[in-house]
Amino acid sequence: MTFLYKSESLRGAEWAKLFAAKAPDIPFRIWPDIGDPREVRYLGAWIPPDDIMAAFPNLELLISVGAGVDQFDLSKLPPELPVVRMVEPGIVDGMVEYVTMSVLALHRDLVPYIAQQKGQIWKQIRVLPASTRRVGVLGLGMLGEAVARKLTGFGFPVAGWSRTQRTIEGVTCYSGTQGMSDFLGRTDILICLLPLTSETRGILNADLFSRLPHGARLVNTGRGGHLDQDALLAALDSGQISAAVLDVTDPEPLPAGHALWNDPRVLVTPHIASMTQPDTAVEVVLENLRRHRAGEPLIGLVDRSRGY
Amino acid sequence: MTFLYKSESLRGAEWAKLFAAKAPDIPFRIWPDIGDPREVRYLGAWIPPDDIMAAFPNLELLISVGAGVDQFDLSKLPPELPVVRMVEPGIVDGMVEYVTMSVLALHRDLVPYIAQQKGQIWKQIRVLPASTRRVGVLGLGMLGEAVARKLTGFGFPVAGWSRTQRTIEGVTCYSGTQGMSDFLGRTDILICLLPLTSETRGILNADLFSRLPHGARLVNTGRGGHLDQDALLAALDSGQISAAVLDVTDPEPLPAGHALWNDPRVLVTPHIASMTQPDTAVEVVLENLRRHRAGEPLIGLVDRSRGY
Repeated sequence: MTFLYKSESLRGAEWAKLFAAKAPDIPFRIWPDIGDPREVRYLGAWIPPDDIMAAFPNLELLISVGAGVDQFDLSKLPPELPVVRMVEPGIVDGMVEYVTMSVLALHRDLVPYIAQQKGQIWKQIRVLPASTRRVGVLGLGMLGEAVARKLTGFGFPVAGWSRTQRTIEGVTCYSGTQGMSDFLGRTDILICLLPLTSETRGILNADLFSRLPHGARLVNTGRGGHLDQDALLAALDSGQISAAVLDVTDPEPLPAGHALWNDPRVLVTPHIASMTQPDTAVEVVLENLRRHRAGEPLIGLVDRSRGY
Repeated sequence: MTFLYKSESLRGAEWAKLFAAKAPDIPFRIWPDIGDPREVRYLGAWIPPDDIMAAFPNLELLISVGAGVDQFDLSKLPPELPVVRMVEPGIVDGMVEYVTMSVLALHRDLVPYIAQQKGQIWKQIRVLPASTRRVGVLGLGMLGEAVARKLTGFGFPVAGWSRTQRTIEGVTCYSGTQGMSDFLGRTDILICLLPLTSETRGILNADLFSRLPHGARLVNTGRGGHLDQDALLAALDSGQISAAVLDVTDPEPLPAGHALWNDPRVLVTPHIASMTQPDTAVEVVLENLRRHRAGEPLIGLVDRSRGY
């Protein structure tokens, strides 16, 4: 009953140590040293191998080492194979840090100040109170909810939108199609924390931008596939969007020469908003292995019908 | 009993409106329209006029429109003239926003990512938990205390240093000379929020940097005069300091061609960390005028012997 890890190898070595200490009975291997493929029962992967089931005929559980499962082609996996997302506190903390940093940066005009520094320009932009800057979180899952709660602590009026209606103290919650219009119309800084599914692909497009107040600001910490990058560049040119922080792009890495790299209204980081933290992640994985063997409900089990 | 305002004129117009609404009995004038100088009893100024007492012989109260009074030459003012710093919640909120943004940016390697974007480089730096990043606040006045409290909410181990010993829940407080060594030795991200006085001028120098852990990061939101800029450039070159966010410089504006403008390890903003917010500031000023007339203790009264 081997656990096979297929992702960044330095962190794999940390997982190996944690498994050795906490679950010495479970053989732990790091890709490409897979051993006997018939022994692999659990696969923890970021980018999965092709044709998983042919490669590992006795696979019982597929675990994403990241918060999303959009990198898996769910249609090629047998319906009875459980797939779980990584639900661990280290990912949440990292995302709260990154989004708080980004929202404060957009609120406090850091993107134009970075451009000014490049031009050696010392010019003040008036500071407006947080109470005048309406923040909106698209997606109120584990990450979106934690981000929304944290941002209320700075005095921003915070709202959130989700597919199904949520209730979060201090956060105005919207849902559904009508809710989306109301939500966008009151949002000065928009944060995308949706899962990437067939329904949400390309959701950050010209139509959505046109429903935001003029000069709105954007943080994309979802997936590159959520954003129509050409529509963003057009919205920046028209002034409909005034600045953006992008942690994800399509494709990744962002190719050299792409217009987003050089745009003074855009801050690009290389998909580092949040990373799975080995110590807390291994705790959750081991708990899921225990639950799997005991036939109990898994933490972060993906609903194939909704895609996350 | 005229109130004369001498600072940025757009905000002066907002002060004038607020005075007209809340204290119509107090004539309000904006520099240089001073009217009869003998009528000026209250002066609210950022950069004061030369020889204040000769210009306004009946001046009863000098109010800084900013958080500091280091721009006043206190030695030239008669000892009996009360001088007050601006103590108002809008300044505190702005500073908490800016420093939180800066600490998160240093914690999450935003400064090297900005340099990478310039070079179109997509390269991830490992995310470390906030629990491993020790933050230290130099100066635990109104601003330093608020900043320290906020940062504990992200899981950073937070300490503070002040001239006299303080007690703040969740913050390890140091004071005095021995306390300074212990404080610096455990600080990975240092924030300067000291008042600028003869004792603190140049405090951020080569000696102080050498007492921080190698690779420490710096936020200066105090005054440009706190920092030996050449020592910072040398510490960046040696790697003793790995990145810095500077909101204040000496002189201001930072001259074109200065090495700090182009340094990829430094983020410079034009003294915008916090701005006095007219609505909350006028509340405090009017309360101080009332107290002054009633002979009650003033909010933010400067102790001439310590210089703040």
